[in-house]
Amino acid sequence: MTRPLPEDLWPDVRPDAARRLMAAAVESFASRGYHATTTRDIATAAGMSPAALYVHFPAKSAVLFAISRSGHARTLAMVENTIAEHADPVDAMRTLVERFVAWHAQRHVVARVVQHELDALPAQEYQVVVDLRRRTESLVREVITRGAESGAFTVPDVRTAARAVLSLGIDVARWYSPASKPSPTVLGKQYAELVLRMLGYTS
Amino acid sequence: MTRPLPEDLWPDVRPDAARRLMAAAVESFASRGYHATTTRDIATAAGMSPAALYVHFPAKSAVLFAISRSGHARTLAMVENTIAEHADPVDAMRTLVERFVAWHAQRHVVARVVQHELDALPAQEYQVVVDLRRRTESLVREVITRGAESGAFTVPDVRTAARAVLSLGIDVARWYSPASKPSPTVLGKQYAELVLRMLGYTS
Repeated sequence: MTRPLPEDLWPDVRPDAARRLMAAAVESFASRGYHATTTRDIATAAGMSPAALYVHFPAKSAVLFAISRSGHARTLAMVENTIAEHADPVDAMRTLVERFVAWHAQRHVVARVVQHELDALPAQEYQVVVDLRRRTESLVREVITRGAESGAFTVPDVRTAARAVLSLGIDVARWYSPASKPSPTVLGKQYAELVLRMLGYTS
Repeated sequence: MTRPLPEDLWPDVRPDAARRLMAAAVESFASRGYHATTTRDIATAAGMSPAALYVHFPAKSAVLFAISRSGHARTLAMVENTIAEHADPVDAMRTLVERFVAWHAQRHVVARVVQHELDALPAQEYQVVVDLRRRTESLVREVITRGAESGAFTVPDVRTAARAVLSLGIDVARWYSPASKPSPTVLGKQYAELVLRMLGYTS
């Protein structure tokens, strides 16, 4: 492992061996790209035999899918929870951006792999991920629409605004490095303020 | 060629064969990744022999560098020209975002390759590109600072604001597709309005 991976990645994945393989795959995909990585590379990096990998994943693409689905499902769950916690659209949007941005900063290595290798997913798996993304984007649009209806937000185009909100957060994974000055939490708060202004909110 | 490439890519590159090789490399890198692409793949896609490739580029990394340097140098020149054309920081920022966003939408295939494969550049070439990015980011910070001094902008943190402005534009290359509804020009105008609000500008 050349880069640190947060310990709380995939707490839902069992057994440990499957999680170790996913972590090893993230490292390999991040350093040499998905296409140039073999299942043997992943197994070796996880300290296992290629045969042991196939016990958990039928193919290299299944490891990529597990990583990608987990990331997208947890993002969607975070957005759903945030909306459930905050009835006020301004509070919901602020907390959503704080969490979304901090998440992409903390998990930038995984998030980068997930973004870069999306096109490498087989068609059916790709659709599952696209569906999770659509649901997330649709929830963000709903918060913006509610805010516009309540008069808190003024947006010329809800779709473009929702895209910009998510885009700002996702792109954090591209440029963020552990050496970056603002911590994930501070960056999340700064971005939440920028997003609220972008949506025409004046405190 | 499976994806369309704008005809005006690399108008500065001579001879034609070098430009054809760069276009073929973009296609190959975009579809299978830099690491899994060979110089033979690139030459074949350009309808040339591997030996003919070496006449123009000493290595695969030299093709990637030519693509990446050209994209970054033209972006920097665009930002410099925009600032030279507009003394008012609000006008400068609006035009800058319009052009930056439209550029990343129009040239999303190339821009995506350039972003994804940045880490694949050899150390010295990487530094050249990082230097071009730093100069671009520094110019954006200067416009924001001038706007803050004139009272047109209010930003809590100039560095984070500049990063957000560029991040929004760069990430367009990730999600934009020719099927996307807003045209590059319209998207540029929408994003320019969002950015001006983000910087605390009220018209």
